[in-house]
Amino acid sequence: MEKKLEMVKVFNNKYRINYNDSDYTGKLSIPKLGNYILDTAGLHAIELGISMQTLAEQGLTWVMSGLHFEFFDMPRVNQEVLVTTKISDCSKIACKRDFIVTGPNNEKIAEVSSEWLIINTLTRRPVFLNEVFPGVFDLIENNEKEIEKYKHLRFSIQNPKMSATRKITYSFIDINTHLYSMKYLEMTLDMFDLDFFKNNKIKKADVNFIKEVLYNQQIEINIQNPEPEIFQTEMTVEGKCVFRAEFETSKII
Amino acid sequence: MEKKLEMVKVFNNKYRINYNDSDYTGKLSIPKLGNYILDTAGLHAIELGISMQTLAEQGLTWVMSGLHFEFFDMPRVNQEVLVTTKISDCSKIACKRDFIVTGPNNEKIAEVSSEWLIINTLTRRPVFLNEVFPGVFDLIENNEKEIEKYKHLRFSIQNPKMSATRKITYSFIDINTHLYSMKYLEMTLDMFDLDFFKNNKIKKADVNFIKEVLYNQQIEINIQNPEPEIFQTEMTVEGKCVFRAEFETSKII
Repeated sequence: MEKKLEMVKVFNNKYRINYNDSDYTGKLSIPKLGNYILDTAGLHAIELGISMQTLAEQGLTWVMSGLHFEFFDMPRVNQEVLVTTKISDCSKIACKRDFIVTGPNNEKIAEVSSEWLIINTLTRRPVFLNEVFPGVFDLIENNEKEIEKYKHLRFSIQNPKMSATRKITYSFIDINTHLYSMKYLEMTLDMFDLDFFKNNKIKKADVNFIKEVLYNQQIEINIQNPEPEIFQTEMTVEGKCVFRAEFETSKII
Repeated sequence: MEKKLEMVKVFNNKYRINYNDSDYTGKLSIPKLGNYILDTAGLHAIELGISMQTLAEQGLTWVMSGLHFEFFDMPRVNQEVLVTTKISDCSKIACKRDFIVTGPNNEKIAEVSSEWLIINTLTRRPVFLNEVFPGVFDLIENNEKEIEKYKHLRFSIQNPKMSATRKITYSFIDINTHLYSMKYLEMTLDMFDLDFFKNNKIKKADVNFIKEVLYNQQIEINIQNPEPEIFQTEMTVEGKCVFRAEFETSKII
């Protein structure tokens, strides 16, 4: 039993950067890296018996409350990356899952931390993790340096530098018929122009998922740039904030 | 030499349906299947020494003029598919590449044919294939049943059933800074509502790429439904047609 537990605590999966996983610069894009980590989390959850599918049968689902990213050098098309994940902390209702993304020579590509809740799909209220998943506290693996948790972003946007509206269509929604989490991030990055991506590197990102977005809803995105290297974005639906993100950037010289 | 040629004529690559490759029904979406086939074509081109990268060094690039799809039963998340591709025909300037997508028990998932040109990136004019790629005619593998070529779609849309406009942002463009081919298809499918995907199966699709679309351009998409099971769509930029598609559907009973 002890051995088995050790074996499933840390999980990894390999990805080849497919042609369309890169952006126009030829490097892996942030939302596509986000796809890899969510996919790996899903595979680990299957291994642990707590997949979306299993929870759905009990009227429950996982929701993500936030992400913190630190990016090193992004890989190019056809390179392989390894995503390693573990549960690094748990409270009564929130579970922290860390990811390390590495390249073929073990070079660091990204470190990501995420926080998850299990909610009742009808009441939309969180449930106690150990009631759904009794062994959860035994799975925590925190013997290594922890990746910092996402910042709770509390800014409001007064004088946006850029604004846009979009409507949520078929390709944006996931199996729960909500806006797929990485699409929040993709639409946010779509606010920046091509020169931004050519001339700047995103070093860190903090992401707060505040409210689910439904099919056919109209979203508005606003960005402000309070310091030269900091970009803050907010997504709203009918004036109510559903998502915030903050990016720390540096110039590419 | 003969042996080597036989070995590279037919190429295949495996894909696991990642979490975000499915649509809200839990099945692989058409644009994501399109990603797999383009990725496999890219890998085959690398093997043959005619990758995008190699062509780019000569001021050339591949462009796709059309696709024909036939869909059988789409796989679900975590299933594996094998994409097999070959060059099935070549004229002086156009090359036909076929794909067969199969599941773990060799069941057919899709058959796809595609047509490609090599163009000069400055003049945007096609070049003679055998000048860039002298061995191309020796690589044709047409000993099996051929997959039919895409239809040239010549309809015009008078009274659209649905209309929408979208702007081309960062996440839509490829390494050539043009609209990525599968995004034409994704934006077209985004015109349909969720009930359409629940109640209808797309059996066949013909796709015509007419003109490249650039970053920041505004596109308009219109759909007509001339027969109960046929949907025709047109994408325009400043009133000029850039893309057409026709879908043959059947009701899911």
